[in-house]
Parts: sequence; structure tokens; C-alpha cells
Amino acid sequence: MNIKDLYNDYLTSFNAYLNSMSLPGSPAHLYEPIVYTMSLGGKRLRPVLTLMTADMFGAKRSDVLPVALSIEMFHNFTLLHDDVMDRADVRRGRPTVHRKWNDNVAILSGDTMLTLATQYLTLVPEHYLKGAIELFNRTAIEIYEGQQMDMDFEQRDDVTVAEYMEMIRLKTSVLLGAACRMGALVGGASSDDSNALYEMGVNLGLAFQLQDDLLDVWGDPEKFGKQIGGDIMCGKKTFLLITAMTEATGADRDVLAYYIGGDGRCAPREQKVTAVMSVYDNLGLRERAISSIASYSAKAVSVLSKTSLSPHNISVLSELINMLTSRES
Amino acid sequence: MNIKDLYNDYLTSFNAYLNSMSLPGSPAHLYEPIVYTMSLGGKRLRPVLTLMTADMFGAKRSDVLPVALSIEMFHNFTLLHDDVMDRADVRRGRPTVHRKWNDNVAILSGDTMLTLATQYLTLVPEHYLKGAIELFNRTAIEIYEGQQMDMDFEQRDDVTVAEYMEMIRLKTSVLLGAACRMGALVGGASSDDSNALYEMGVNLGLAFQLQDDLLDVWGDPEKFGKQIGGDIMCGKKTFLLITAMTEATGADRDVLAYYIGGDGRCAPREQKVTAVMSVYDNLGLRERAISSIASYSAKAVSVLSKTSLSPHNISVLSELINMLTSRES
Repeated sequence: MNIKDLYNDYLTSFNAYLNSMSLPGSPAHLYEPIVYTMSLGGKRLRPVLTLMTADMFGAKRSDVLPVALSIEMFHNFTLLHDDVMDRADVRRGRPTVHRKWNDNVAILSGDTMLTLATQYLTLVPEHYLKGAIELFNRTAIEIYEGQQMDMDFEQRDDVTVAEYMEMIRLKTSVLLGAACRMGALVGGASSDDSNALYEMGVNLGLAFQLQDDLLDVWGDPEKFGKQIGGDIMCGKKTFLLITAMTEATGADRDVLAYYIGGDGRCAPREQKVTAVMSVYDNLGLRERAISSIASYSAKAVSVLSKTSLSPHNISVLSELINMLTSRES
Repeated sequence: MNIKDLYNDYLTSFNAYLNSMSLPGSPAHLYEPIVYTMSLGGKRLRPVLTLMTADMFGAKRSDVLPVALSIEMFHNFTLLHDDVMDRADVRRGRPTVHRKWNDNVAILSGDTMLTLATQYLTLVPEHYLKGAIELFNRTAIEIYEGQQMDMDFEQRDDVTVAEYMEMIRLKTSVLLGAACRMGALVGGASSDDSNALYEMGVNLGLAFQLQDDLLDVWGDPEKFGKQIGGDIMCGKKTFLLITAMTEATGADRDVLAYYIGGDGRCAPREQKVTAVMSVYDNLGLRERAISSIASYSAKAVSVLSKTSLSPHNISVLSELINMLTSRES
């Protein structure tokens, strides 16, 4: 089976389980936003990682599905609260919960999702429970720290690439690491194997986020599903912008100063995006980002050789990493 | 030792443990609000209940303290997020977190407190972990449901006393029940004893909340620490207002209609509070509230006779219940 079909198999299995989930109907303002959020779809990357890695360590599917749901529900909770904090209007092409309902509904149904996520985790076999909860909580705390750093960055002009990489490690990558480690945990993997799977997930996460930054600028809007240049328009401190602000000199420096912090920040979309992209081009940032993605992706693959996984399973995970880090959407 | 001194002993033990808690310093906007919130004090009723009940079942103090902290941290997380939702400016005489910092800080540091609360719970002896987490999560979900009901009530004019009692059972009482049950759980109590302790806590919680409604109207501002009539000023649907709106007739009905939903809702404080209080007086609501408090409080005491607790311990808990439900602050 090719990797895409395998991915879709896990996705189907997860979605069937998700659809079997039943929540109380009342109070409606508490539970409707949760059903809405969970039904918006998305790649379901984290639960697929958990299901796939758990399979490789021989876990029972019925033991893993609640863990996969826990991780996906947690992920969607963070998106819901992040959207309130970032005043985002749209998520996956649909109005965000705080826009469709209001801030209070988004805060409280998000809190409920966090508790439900922990609750699904208690369905894990009891001898894995303590480890699973500790991994979940440690990861959650790191993600909050990452979100706070991201918000702090908005007020700063001196963010370094190293700080940015640490922020996306916390905000995005550790959850991919935890999704893989959770699969290993429920499969009863050794601590060496669990550590390696975690490292794989974290490096995949770093590559994945850089790919996101790249697609926002050079992606095909048809495939990416969003307008190109969104990050540039809101002056979001991505790998690209931070590197450019650190390295640009002369006219390029003036262009950034004008469009990012200066009078040009409200310039028409095409003008602003084209100008900033030309600075990126002059610095060769597209190639550098691609090379950085390749390097994290290679790290994710190479760490697999440290595990006790079969050559077949190593090759499946390698293909998955390659598929995810060369995606166009 | 009298009950007040005993309470203060547990309080001192809890506060010492709380002060020994160490959190990371960075990101500052994530952790400073948590330290601020936890240091605002309050009665610490929930952790005292956990410590006291656990002692009665012979639990080790070091096993119970993290559980007590978990419950208190959870309680403070709910206050923090509730204050954002209710746009409250002051909590325990100090600015609320969203006023002192901002909404985003309050949302994210609240999320962190919820995860930290779950994390402290994992320090419980491992054979109690699953039960403790399930009790914690079930209680948390009920509290969110209660908060949503409370917010829904603001938009409604037909709330019944039965609905109000169910709302405060969820929003306030189940956490007192859970605090007691958590103590029983860590002390290895039988399921009958645990159920009885839970019932005690829930009835204590109902009495406690009605006492709060009462103090808001007839309390001594010096002792209560807040201006009298706050609930009347914001038209909060308490036991008193709901009963009055259901039962008032003639001129009393007109007074309520004028001051609560009508043109008089922005009338000067003294005028509005005096007018609504006169309706309460005409309906004998002070006496009825006192009698209702006495009845829940008696239920809380009577359920103790079903337990295997010693007569001494039963009398200690009865004194505690009486102290808490005859409080003036």
C-alpha cells in the first residue's frame, strides 16, 4: 500500500471513532461549538501519527483510538483559544467559534475540550495512565509557553531565528513529538524507542512549520487553500521575515522598514507582498528555507535508525515524513 | 481544639505547601498571573475540606497535599476565566488578571492553571490516580455546564428556583463535594463513605452559596468585605431575585419590573437596593433563605450518620458545616 492510502486508512479509522463520540446536548452553547470545531476536519495529522506508531509497536487499536482522540481534541482546543487571542475570523474556511458565537462561548467550550481531552486519556490501559497523563500535561504546558512567546514576539523587533525556532518547537512541534511518543507508549515501546519517536515527531514538526511559512509566500493559492502573503500582510514574524530583518542591508533594509513597521504597512496587498518577496528573493530565502526543511526532515528520518523498528516500518515512516514535508497544502 | 483553630491548622499546612510550589519564571506573562492569582488568598475552603476528610480516613499528609493544591488551583482557574467572561474588575479586593494584564494573558494563564491542576493530581499514589482524574474531570465538566447555565440565565426572564438550584449545584457545590470525596479517596475510604462525604460537600455547597446570596443583601459590609446590594445592582438572578420575580404581585411586582428590567435599572444605588429589598422583606425572603440554608446544612450533617466515621469526626465535620453556613463573611 502506498503511503497516501495508508494515511487515509488511519484517517478513516480515526474519523469513524470521532463520529461515534457522543456529547450531551445541553447546555447547547457549551457542546455545539465542540461538535462544530471537531467536525471542521483538517489533516488529522496528530491522531494519524499516534495510530500509526502505536500499530508499529503492536498496540490494540481500541486502546489507541481514545488517545488519538485526546490528542486531536487537545489540538483543536488550542486552535480555538488561539483564535480568540489572535482575533482570527476564519479557520478551515469557516467562521471561528468566537465569531460564530462569542468570546465567552469560545473560552468555556475550549476549557471543556481540554478537560474532555484529559478524560479520553483515562481510557488508556491503567498501567500506562500515569505516563500518558504526564506526557500530555508536560506537552500542554510547553504549547502554552510557545503561544505566549509567539504573542510576546509581536511586541518585539529583535526576535532571533534561534528564538523563533524555539517558539515553533514549543508551539507546534512538541505536540507532533507527543503524538508519536503516545503511540509508542500505548504500544509498550522501550524508552529508547519512545525517545527516538518523540525526536522524529519534533523534527517533523519543525520541518512542517517551516513548510507552512514557505507555502504562505510561494504556495499555489489553489492548492494551499488560502490567499498567498497572509503572513507578510500582518507582519507575522516567521522564519522568513526574521531572517530578512536580521540580514537585509541597503535598499532591502529600507523596503522592510517601510512595509513592516513603517508607513507602508497598510499599503495595498499586491504592492506590499511583491516588495517583501523581492527582499526574500534577494536573500535567497526560498532556497534556504527549503534546505532547512530538508535538514529537519532528514534528522527526523535518521533518528529512526536508532529504533528497534523493522526496516519496513522505518521506510513507511520515512515516506510519511517526505510526504508531509513536501506537501503543497 | 475548637473548629476555628483546627481550620486554621489545615490552612497553615496548605499555605506552607502552596508557598513551596515553584513555577518557571519565563515566559513571565504566563506564570506571573498564576503566582498573583494563587497568592490572593481566600478561605481555601476546598483544600481544607480535602485535608480534613483525608485525615479522618488516615491518609498520609504528603499524599493529600498535591491533591488539595490541584483542587484549589482548579478553583482559581475557574474564577480567572469566569472573571474574563463576566468582565469583573475586582477579585478579593485586587484587580482581576484580565484587568491587570489583558484578556489573552488571562485566557492562556488560566489554561495553564487547568493543566497544572491535573499535573498535581498525578502525584497521588498511583492506584488512586484513575479514580482521582475521573472525579476531577467529571467535576470540571459539571462546573463548566453550571457556568454556561449561569450565563444563559442572564438572557432569560423565566428562570425557576429549581433551575437556579441546579445551576449552583453544578457551578459551586459539586466542587465542594469533590473536595471531600477526594480526601476520602486518598484515605482509601469505602465507596459508601465516599458517596456520603460527596453528598455532605454538595449540600454544604448549596447552603454556602445561598448564604452568599443572603450576605450580599443583608450582610454587614464591614465583615462581608464588599458593598451590600451588588447582586441587586446588576440584576443577578439569585435565589432571592428569582423567588421574588416568581411570587411578587401588585405594587411589588411593579417595583421589580421597574428596577430590574425597566427604566429604573440605572437608578441610584441606594434607591434601587432599598426598593428591591422592601420587596424581599414583604415576601419574607430573608427568613426563607435562612430556613433553606438551615435545611441544606442539616442534610449535610445528617448524611454523616451513614458513614463509618467516629462520633468525634462526625462532630468535627458538623461543627465545620455550622461554622461555614453561619458565617458573616
